[in-house]
Amino acid sequence: MSPAKPQHSSTHHDAGGTTSTEQLTVAVVQCPLQGPRERNIACVDRWVRHAAAQGAHVILPPELFEGRYFPQREDPSFFDEARAFAGNRTIAHFSALARELQVVIPVSFFERDQQAYYNSVSVIDATGEVLGLYRKSHIPDGPGYSEKYYFRPGDTGFRVFDTSFGVIGVGICWDQWYPECARAMTLLGAEVLLYPTAIGSEPATPDVDTKEPWQRVMVGHAVANSIPVAAANRIGVEDGMSFYGSSFIANSRGDKVVELSRTEEGTALAHFNRRDVASERNAWGFFRDRRPDLYDTLLTADGHTRWRRR
Amino acid sequence: MSPAKPQHSSTHHDAGGTTSTEQLTVAVVQCPLQGPRERNIACVDRWVRHAAAQGAHVILPPELFEGRYFPQREDPSFFDEARAFAGNRTIAHFSALARELQVVIPVSFFERDQQAYYNSVSVIDATGEVLGLYRKSHIPDGPGYSEKYYFRPGDTGFRVFDTSFGVIGVGICWDQWYPECARAMTLLGAEVLLYPTAIGSEPATPDVDTKEPWQRVMVGHAVANSIPVAAANRIGVEDGMSFYGSSFIANSRGDKVVELSRTEEGTALAHFNRRDVASERNAWGFFRDRRPDLYDTLLTADGHTRWRRR
Repeated sequence: MSPAKPQHSSTHHDAGGTTSTEQLTVAVVQCPLQGPRERNIACVDRWVRHAAAQGAHVILPPELFEGRYFPQREDPSFFDEARAFAGNRTIAHFSALARELQVVIPVSFFERDQQAYYNSVSVIDATGEVLGLYRKSHIPDGPGYSEKYYFRPGDTGFRVFDTSFGVIGVGICWDQWYPECARAMTLLGAEVLLYPTAIGSEPATPDVDTKEPWQRVMVGHAVANSIPVAAANRIGVEDGMSFYGSSFIANSRGDKVVELSRTEEGTALAHFNRRDVASERNAWGFFRDRRPDLYDTLLTADGHTRWRRR
Repeated sequence: MSPAKPQHSSTHHDAGGTTSTEQLTVAVVQCPLQGPRERNIACVDRWVRHAAAQGAHVILPPELFEGRYFPQREDPSFFDEARAFAGNRTIAHFSALARELQVVIPVSFFERDQQAYYNSVSVIDATGEVLGLYRKSHIPDGPGYSEKYYFRPGDTGFRVFDTSFGVIGVGICWDQWYPECARAMTLLGAEVLLYPTAIGSEPATPDVDTKEPWQRVMVGHAVANSIPVAAANRIGVEDGMSFYGSSFIANSRGDKVVELSRTEEGTALAHFNRRDVASERNAWGFFRDRRPDLYDTLLTADGHTRWRRR
């Protein structure tokens, strides 16, 4: 079944008759990040400025853009790359940039908090204000992606951030495969879902290409929650591992509005009207018909044993 | 991030070296259902036999296949079409057919239980045994889809059925838009997700076509749960409402293995290897990394107020 939906598309390239606060232009940044920290920051800085010049309001760089994707190997020396949230120089850099350009920037970084290390993102508002921190909840592990060696599973819970241009939800990479994360962020009021990412080839299975399932699962979140979704991935080869870019932005029907190639460096923008997105979500009625009284199973790990708070 | 996956595909058209119990061949039935009950049952019967002759183990007819899609209008006379689960003649017909052909058949029907009416499905094993009942949990409402007028929201909770050919999860139409339903059935042990469906044009918004989002959200469930998904839809025009078929089966990567057109009557089959499907799910590790300790939000309707059992 599907209730009737408004006839307009959820993307507006013509803002005629709408107020500026209704407009939400989202951009993804895709670039190689194999160099030293300063060069990677300069590269992201350059593309953020480029996207802002084209009118982007919210600009998403890739995951852990300060350096190479170190979880490819298990090497204790990489823990030295982590930085505290408080006084973080990279966050300070992009806070100044966000204020200068009046854009929202989610900054993904390797966080150290005393003896714990997290895969985190800090959302910076268009005023330069640091709105808060989200720590990656779902931590993967497998050949070439040894994140459980580095990152403690996040303890912040899923978060949304009320920015100057709307409420944004940010999940980090592996979180993007979890319907629970997308649903929770939308229930908390997100108007768009953003996923900084680092994904590429599979060292143990060279003929497996995960690009299609990677995009499909997020397109599914877009439809199921009737909400736009954006993912920013890195490109380039690191120690034989090839990151496939394919950064994209989907509208709330799951149409890929823009998509970058597997190798091109750059940005891609998509224009949304917040009022139309909310109107379409109401027309579908997905949230009207949810059955939390039947969802207890989701709080189990095995379908039966209820998880208990320790 | 994405852990390495096995190099084999999750679909096997060559069963060489595998035991019969590892093989699972799923079929969807797509046909017009505007005629009287007897003619519709005969039509579904014919196509079930056709699919079984091609080697199908589990054969899925569309939603409410005994008659026209009556929720298009709100008319109390349609309540007379409902039948009790116990002694249901249509279920008895397909129980005999399932036993004869040694196939599993989920039978969608309009159920009356005393003063309550449900949109239900009864799963029949290849022995002819009726394994149980599931009542549609998510009930839509909108122009042309006035289901809230007819159906009490289901009280069975999400269910899986342990059949002769594997554990199957069955959701009913609008349930197919809900990640909660797909995740719950997979957590409960489903090896394939089946969705009998009745979906078509939108009377209030003729230029809106929901076919793409309809398929995309289920493809998302296939990837997120690393599980094959099948949907069977009706075709034909009923009172100006056009049902668009497009029944399909996707593998656990979200590849559409088979898809019928918007108008053709018939069946489509896909072959899976249960061991490979389970192996791929383990390789992804989605269920290893879930965080039920962070999923409380999913049991709320507004993101904050916890639902309480009355």
